[in-house]
Amino acid sequence: MQKHSERMRQEGRTLSFVPTMGFLHDGHLSLMQAGRQRGDRLIISIFVNPTQFAPNEDFDSYPRDFERDLDLAREVGVDVVFAPQRESLYPDGYQTYVRSEGLSNHLCGISRPIFFTGVATIVTKLFHIVMPTIALFGEKDYQQLTVIRRMVQDLNMGIEIIGCPTVREPDGLAMSSRNAYLKPEQRAAALSLSQALFHASKRVQSGETETSTIIEDAFKRITAHAETEVDYIAVVDAETLVDIEAIDRPARMALAVRVGTTRLIDNIALNP
Amino acid sequence: MQKHSERMRQEGRTLSFVPTMGFLHDGHLSLMQAGRQRGDRLIISIFVNPTQFAPNEDFDSYPRDFERDLDLAREVGVDVVFAPQRESLYPDGYQTYVRSEGLSNHLCGISRPIFFTGVATIVTKLFHIVMPTIALFGEKDYQQLTVIRRMVQDLNMGIEIIGCPTVREPDGLAMSSRNAYLKPEQRAAALSLSQALFHASKRVQSGETETSTIIEDAFKRITAHAETEVDYIAVVDAETLVDIEAIDRPARMALAVRVGTTRLIDNIALNP
Repeated sequence: MQKHSERMRQEGRTLSFVPTMGFLHDGHLSLMQAGRQRGDRLIISIFVNPTQFAPNEDFDSYPRDFERDLDLAREVGVDVVFAPQRESLYPDGYQTYVRSEGLSNHLCGISRPIFFTGVATIVTKLFHIVMPTIALFGEKDYQQLTVIRRMVQDLNMGIEIIGCPTVREPDGLAMSSRNAYLKPEQRAAALSLSQALFHASKRVQSGETETSTIIEDAFKRITAHAETEVDYIAVVDAETLVDIEAIDRPARMALAVRVGTTRLIDNIALNP
Repeated sequence: MQKHSERMRQEGRTLSFVPTMGFLHDGHLSLMQAGRQRGDRLIISIFVNPTQFAPNEDFDSYPRDFERDLDLAREVGVDVVFAPQRESLYPDGYQTYVRSEGLSNHLCGISRPIFFTGVATIVTKLFHIVMPTIALFGEKDYQQLTVIRRMVQDLNMGIEIIGCPTVREPDGLAMSSRNAYLKPEQRAAALSLSQALFHASKRVQSGETETSTIIEDAFKRITAHAETEVDYIAVVDAETLVDIEAIDRPARMALAVRVGTTRLIDNIALNP
């Protein structure tokens, strides 16, 4: 892969890259379409990265369907699918990790303390192997996008990071490979996440600025459904991810909620 | 620098890179000469990296002589001297660090806990900016060389790392920019470091295999001199840097000793 990319870059091609954990859905496909438009060559990776899962998390059960993924990639016009083996990326004695100290300590970083170190590390490795000009990430994983932007800037990676809007089901549920875990009644409860966010957005557009009011309202809307357990609901500065009390600057409302045993996340922009 | 390197690589040039903190001595020059031979273009960096110094260490007093460094670089045939400003490499809000967990916890990592994180981070940044094919490091900083080799392998950096032999003064003292701190009587005491290592090497060649005996002997030889204070004297596995009891595999004897207020390091190969 590295040699192939080196050759393409020597030929002056711009390389678009979409890293994924597979089980592709319309969110991934929209990233690929955007990558297709922006680069001469489109590369995706499919790798369920073990270092971003804690021992109690769903690494083993994470949904996988490699053949279907290849078909979808072909349809979108992906030039290269890079699907490495775990042993080749993390051989015995592996010990080097990349960490963004500040941004990783908020939101999902609290209940998933190793997650963003795992993400920053695998993305660094994939960037070195794939050598992209441009890499595309979904706003669905807003904190991940923020951490990666910061990492690319801090470590002088010289790669353009593009954030793409969250793709949603017709009823509003954010696309996620983990939606496959949801039973029908859980699927209904899960809808409360996006609905709470849309409602918050409307309230802010109508002039509400106090974040505690907005958060309390979202909490009520979500916990009204059975099987929901809120990990966090937060309104943060869109850049630093620090909690804010009033919407007096570009902000992001983000939440993580367990529906049954499935942990779902979603977020929305809240602008003053 | 990044654009310049990208262009050179697109032209198919191999780039040799020697990162330094300046105040160049014959050790640096030997790295540059080796780099000159191996690459089409030779790049060096001069940057006293603040993130590898603890607050109580000698960042402010570290010797600097940029004009002399430029003259020396010119003489060796360096093509590019990259000398960035602190603010451009570590702007406000900087927060991303690279760390090799295991190797950084031995030897110098014990008394300098942030040192190898600082080194791995700045070397990663410089590699991203300079985009070398080959990078050269001195065996004088043996643990640093080991950490960087591991990092390059773990993070798939695709850069060839060359370790070059320690360059010594005619009497045996390992070249170091910090030797400039030594007063004449300290300079004499500092000689005991390399002499202890050479003596250990001879004993191993004569059949000694017990590391405790070798270490004890070196300790006596060094502490016989005034103003010496041993940080550590260790015999370790040459690859993992773990302490070993017998020289039954490729090993490295490494030591760090304070002479007055100057901390000096040196090391030597001990092979069974």
